[in-house]
Amino acid sequence: MGSALAGAFLDGGQRTTVWNRTPGKADPLVARGAVVAASAEEAVANSDLVVVNVKGNEAARSILASAGSLAGRVVVNLSDGTSGEAREVATRVAERGAEYVHGQIMTIAPAIGHADSVVFYGGDEGAFNRHRAELLLLGGRGTFLGDDAGAPALFGLAMNGTMWGTLNGFLHAAALLSSQGVEVKRFVEAASASLTGLLGYLPSLAEEVDRGEYAVPFGALKHHLPAADDLVRESRERGIDVEFPSYTLGLLRAVVEAGHGDDSYSRVVEVFRSGSTAS
Amino acid sequence: MGSALAGAFLDGGQRTTVWNRTPGKADPLVARGAVVAASAEEAVANSDLVVVNVKGNEAARSILASAGSLAGRVVVNLSDGTSGEAREVATRVAERGAEYVHGQIMTIAPAIGHADSVVFYGGDEGAFNRHRAELLLLGGRGTFLGDDAGAPALFGLAMNGTMWGTLNGFLHAAALLSSQGVEVKRFVEAASASLTGLLGYLPSLAEEVDRGEYAVPFGALKHHLPAADDLVRESRERGIDVEFPSYTLGLLRAVVEAGHGDDSYSRVVEVFRSGSTAS
Repeated sequence: MGSALAGAFLDGGQRTTVWNRTPGKADPLVARGAVVAASAEEAVANSDLVVVNVKGNEAARSILASAGSLAGRVVVNLSDGTSGEAREVATRVAERGAEYVHGQIMTIAPAIGHADSVVFYGGDEGAFNRHRAELLLLGGRGTFLGDDAGAPALFGLAMNGTMWGTLNGFLHAAALLSSQGVEVKRFVEAASASLTGLLGYLPSLAEEVDRGEYAVPFGALKHHLPAADDLVRESRERGIDVEFPSYTLGLLRAVVEAGHGDDSYSRVVEVFRSGSTAS
Repeated sequence: MGSALAGAFLDGGQRTTVWNRTPGKADPLVARGAVVAASAEEAVANSDLVVVNVKGNEAARSILASAGSLAGRVVVNLSDGTSGEAREVATRVAERGAEYVHGQIMTIAPAIGHADSVVFYGGDEGAFNRHRAELLLLGGRGTFLGDDAGAPALFGLAMNGTMWGTLNGFLHAAALLSSQGVEVKRFVEAASASLTGLLGYLPSLAEEVDRGEYAVPFGALKHHLPAADDLVRESRERGIDVEFPSYTLGLLRAVVEAGHGDDSYSRVVEVFRSGSTAS
């Protein structure tokens, strides 16, 4: 990922100094015009805009701690982690006289630099705006979320969680379909309108959660119960994992047993908020 | 749902006989021109096309068993259940000299009759084609899947499973976002491109599963592990349910520990096929 980021800056005509904990990794970038620094400190001394991308904010923090003076620099940290960790790095960096922007990359390395690649940013808005052109070289859909340096990580985790739920539900379905000789590709084609409709449903669920109003017409979550039970039984009959659909059944039962069976599916958010599920 | 179905036939100008186990339920339909039968047998005797919609195939089977001769009729059963149950009803109905079509309604009752409402059909193709015009009155996107009467239930369950995975992932994310004062609606807006990209990713995952080829460029599932761990930690720090993200973490670990960490995310289908997950 680090090479992809540096490559995007070089492709954009930026003077780029690179440093990696593993010497020699930067050689292909040197061939493209990058300057190699002998240390993190030298890399920071050479640059107004300091971009950090390592595995985890603990590593980011320790590298920045060993990087000498950050005064007057803009530090853009693209390392993964929790929102709390990002806020902590932001505080430490600000204490050392630098402006801090956190970024959450929402794509794989080969898509860095593409016009439709998404990166979420948060933190110092002035610093982001001054370096907007350079940062958009990394991904054309760079979005500034606000002054909370934790927001990019939070939005990224929220997107990942939604993605994993979708992929797990889909691949569980794929196991069921293929167990009965059905091509999964045929299902995706036949279900295309329903899948698109599903995404179109998320904004109204979001509004229900934001308003805390789960009582909506035709929302009745309880009608999902027999269908979820069908999925558990179908899985059992086919020898496919029953734990994943049973989890959904448990969520639905928890809502119905709490007396909210006539509410929208969005009511499930309250089960997650309660900190434990009832599967 | 039964009233919505009969109403769609009436709106389409079809001569419609209705029967419900609870007398009086049909009164509003009578006002719209429906004929009320005194028994299931009378309803069947009055109709070439017999449409059944009750809670579960057990109920559908017992009603059809008490409905007298089915010879020469087309029976369209829209009751929910597993694919095996649908195939069993199909066999029983065919034994009694009727043609059988199973249908899986993919919408809520108020959307019955709309041009973009989806109903999956399977079973006797000749019978479906002869009654295609009437059946499309129920939902404009009526799709015939083939001669397997179990396919509509299977496709419906596959869609529901994908939907629940998505909704649960999204609502877990919503709990996290709102715990930090972020409007969920703002997340949906900011993540819109990523969400659309997610759906665009399903056909290639489907092809990987269909071909059993999980080794693809840039697929490395192992790179999801630290991010899934971040989601578990973020949830724990905020007092939000950790079971749901831990389930994903367990799935990913199972794949990596089996030596397939460089494969595509689609490899998760094999964990579901093995019948047990490792969360």
